[in-house]
Amino acid sequence: MNGKSSKPASPSLPGGLSVRDAQACILGKTAPLGAEDIALERALGRVLAADVRADRDLPPHDISAMDGYAVCAADTADAPARLKIVDDIRAGDTPRVTLQRGQCARIMTGAPVPAGADTVVRVEDTRPGPDDAVDILIPVRAATDIRRRAENMRRGEIVLAAGTGIGPGTVGALATAKQATVAVHRQPRVAILSSGNELEALREPFDPGKIPDANTYALMAQVQAQGVEPDLLGIARDDPAELSGFLERGLGYDILLVSGGASVGVHDHVRPTLAALGVAMHFWRVEMRPGHPVAFGTRGRCFVFCLPGNPVSSMVCFEQFVLPALRALAGHRRLFRRTLPARLTHAVESRPGRIEFMRVTLARDASGIYEAASAGSQSSGDMLSMARADGLLIVPSASKGLAAGETARVQLLETGAYQDEAELGDEPCSQKDVHRASLHDTIGP
Amino acid sequence: MNGKSSKPASPSLPGGLSVRDAQACILGKTAPLGAEDIALERALGRVLAADVRADRDLPPHDISAMDGYAVCAADTADAPARLKIVDDIRAGDTPRVTLQRGQCARIMTGAPVPAGADTVVRVEDTRPGPDDAVDILIPVRAATDIRRRAENMRRGEIVLAAGTGIGPGTVGALATAKQATVAVHRQPRVAILSSGNELEALREPFDPGKIPDANTYALMAQVQAQGVEPDLLGIARDDPAELSGFLERGLGYDILLVSGGASVGVHDHVRPTLAALGVAMHFWRVEMRPGHPVAFGTRGRCFVFCLPGNPVSSMVCFEQFVLPALRALAGHRRLFRRTLPARLTHAVESRPGRIEFMRVTLARDASGIYEAASAGSQSSGDMLSMARADGLLIVPSASKGLAAGETARVQLLETGAYQDEAELGDEPCSQKDVHRASLHDTIGP
Repeated sequence: MNGKSSKPASPSLPGGLSVRDAQACILGKTAPLGAEDIALERALGRVLAADVRADRDLPPHDISAMDGYAVCAADTADAPARLKIVDDIRAGDTPRVTLQRGQCARIMTGAPVPAGADTVVRVEDTRPGPDDAVDILIPVRAATDIRRRAENMRRGEIVLAAGTGIGPGTVGALATAKQATVAVHRQPRVAILSSGNELEALREPFDPGKIPDANTYALMAQVQAQGVEPDLLGIARDDPAELSGFLERGLGYDILLVSGGASVGVHDHVRPTLAALGVAMHFWRVEMRPGHPVAFGTRGRCFVFCLPGNPVSSMVCFEQFVLPALRALAGHRRLFRRTLPARLTHAVESRPGRIEFMRVTLARDASGIYEAASAGSQSSGDMLSMARADGLLIVPSASKGLAAGETARVQLLETGAYQDEAELGDEPCSQKDVHRASLHDTIGP
Repeated sequence: MNGKSSKPASPSLPGGLSVRDAQACILGKTAPLGAEDIALERALGRVLAADVRADRDLPPHDISAMDGYAVCAADTADAPARLKIVDDIRAGDTPRVTLQRGQCARIMTGAPVPAGADTVVRVEDTRPGPDDAVDILIPVRAATDIRRRAENMRRGEIVLAAGTGIGPGTVGALATAKQATVAVHRQPRVAILSSGNELEALREPFDPGKIPDANTYALMAQVQAQGVEPDLLGIARDDPAELSGFLERGLGYDILLVSGGASVGVHDHVRPTLAALGVAMHFWRVEMRPGHPVAFGTRGRCFVFCLPGNPVSSMVCFEQFVLPALRALAGHRRLFRRTLPARLTHAVESRPGRIEFMRVTLARDASGIYEAASAGSQSSGDMLSMARADGLLIVPSASKGLAAGETARVQLLETGAYQDEAELGDEPCSQKDVHRASLHDTIGP
């Protein structure tokens, strides 16, 4: 005997929660963090903590939507008509001339429509005349090709509401509203701790008896992908005092992720240590595969996730539990990965009772429908198939398996956000020269 | 007259390219940039520039896949069988005892299987015996619940190939292969220049006659979303010397994005200035809506994109042309946004001849199929509908419009990457309490 008194762990709860109930348990305890002011240059991916109002009308005047001539519509009623050009107005100019009947102004897209004009004639509907004149070739109705003052934003109106997630379009809208500084929800501070005697740190020399610490870095990258730079606490060895010190430090964060070198080791030491540190545990097991031994607790405002020691299981648990919690704390309303339906290229077996997340790659069939295929070994030890996966295909917990050709939902991972083909609706053939008709012809509702 | 000799611009080419041909023109000139070494902590979103090989076998030994007892299978043939526990092996331990017949070792998940054992019995198939003994309740075949040495990685084998995009799973695999430093393709350096007298800079005071510079920041955020921090050159006024200075500075980057305050102003000044600076222009117009006046040129290794002055048009052009070019330079193989099919909730009119990109939001119908609805005004001046959009719905260039209920492709924008519901295949009802069956029951292949 090695002199240790460990015994195989037994679960504290007879069964485990469903993924949905575990998510509900976690999300029921989250609320968006407080607000902070940041520069617009740093706002991408954050969430607005306050309404944003327009500081002006946009457009600020009636402006031309085209390059052409600002005219009085009545002057074109008997077109062709020759009008005298009395001004030349570009975007940013202030018109200096009030048009009289028989006059017009050359005008550029975005330029203010001068007084006396009530419509715009496109340049292609005109012909240069002699001297400073132009021939208008067709009659034009009033208010043609004019963008009205305040059509896009009206001074004082709310243009972006608190709770809006900030994507590139939002950044553009914030710049339009002149928000150089933006009030956003604070992002959670995240600490990552690995544990286990068998782990070799990334920058430690090679030890043939040890296993590289992949968990710390896989979780780091998952957190980074949410725009948060986590603190890496390192590796806690199987020593209660050392572990306690690490955990106490981690409990100072908004989110503490603890992954064990081996699930049992984690539960043996981490559980009593967390209890001694005052962490209330809310669940210890979830009925899912991979990822069964995943636990969640809180102390004050710190959310503690005990993730499986196995890196693939730990990543899958992050996706289901940590990601939505992290997004909820950051103020997001959309907490879950986008899913899409995909057709399985092969049969999948499953034991009912646990929802299964299968690493899959995505491709298109000849008619443009997604096909999902296993990304390789589904062994929870195979990090390479996780690296290859475009998404996680969901085999529902009640399912005994899926047949080849059946359709299931796939959660899109980071790696599934881009594809090989532009898919512009005009594809004459796929990359493999398979005939493929215009998509909206072949996919019916 | 304002004393300027400008005239409405006429296109240099009679028509424009298709989006597909314009993409092909651009991508035909791209090649991945050279390699650089970076820390694994900074590798997310980059692309491997060299193959990565395993530095060891993983697992390093035959290890247990479960918590239980390492035994000789022959000892369990007449189960129940009482075996003497002679060792207690955890992950990271080195077994010290060679098992003799009638002996076993307590073993944890991930721990090495000791010599003399050829299988593992799960703890739930055992019962504690008297003293240091355990009762094995069932016969177990050899090689059960053992993960074989090198099953996941074999020393010296390529585990990740050059060209692999680095997502969180890849970071985990790189950590597993102990790659603290990673050779990746350099990312393009990007400069952003706005132009136009009518533009008011973000931190300039309010001027009622001007329009806020939204382009610089919307483009900045689109570039940032690709993991690249662009340099913002500022706003060039309609002055050839000033513009020339700005452009010359921008031509020192890998990618120069120039957007004009008004399309005509840009083409009037930018075009001859770029020509004078030695930039070869490859196209000036693309048959698309919004975004018609988009141009592309090169000088040496610099890619120059002249984007429309209208911020929405400029963002849509970025998505179609700059994004794939930027990704190609960074070494990515997947250059285009993920698309998904969605059913239109309303009819859309379109003039054939130009592909149309419509800002849409996505929601689910009762059976889990995506429905796309206009995100608001499709006026190219409406940045707010761009901020709201989950994606760009593609109306193919040959289409005269789409009917309500028709299915079309939607390019997923950043803002469309997440959704409201977890969608785990067990949804009893939608958020609106509409009955919804298990997805794989209702969506046929």
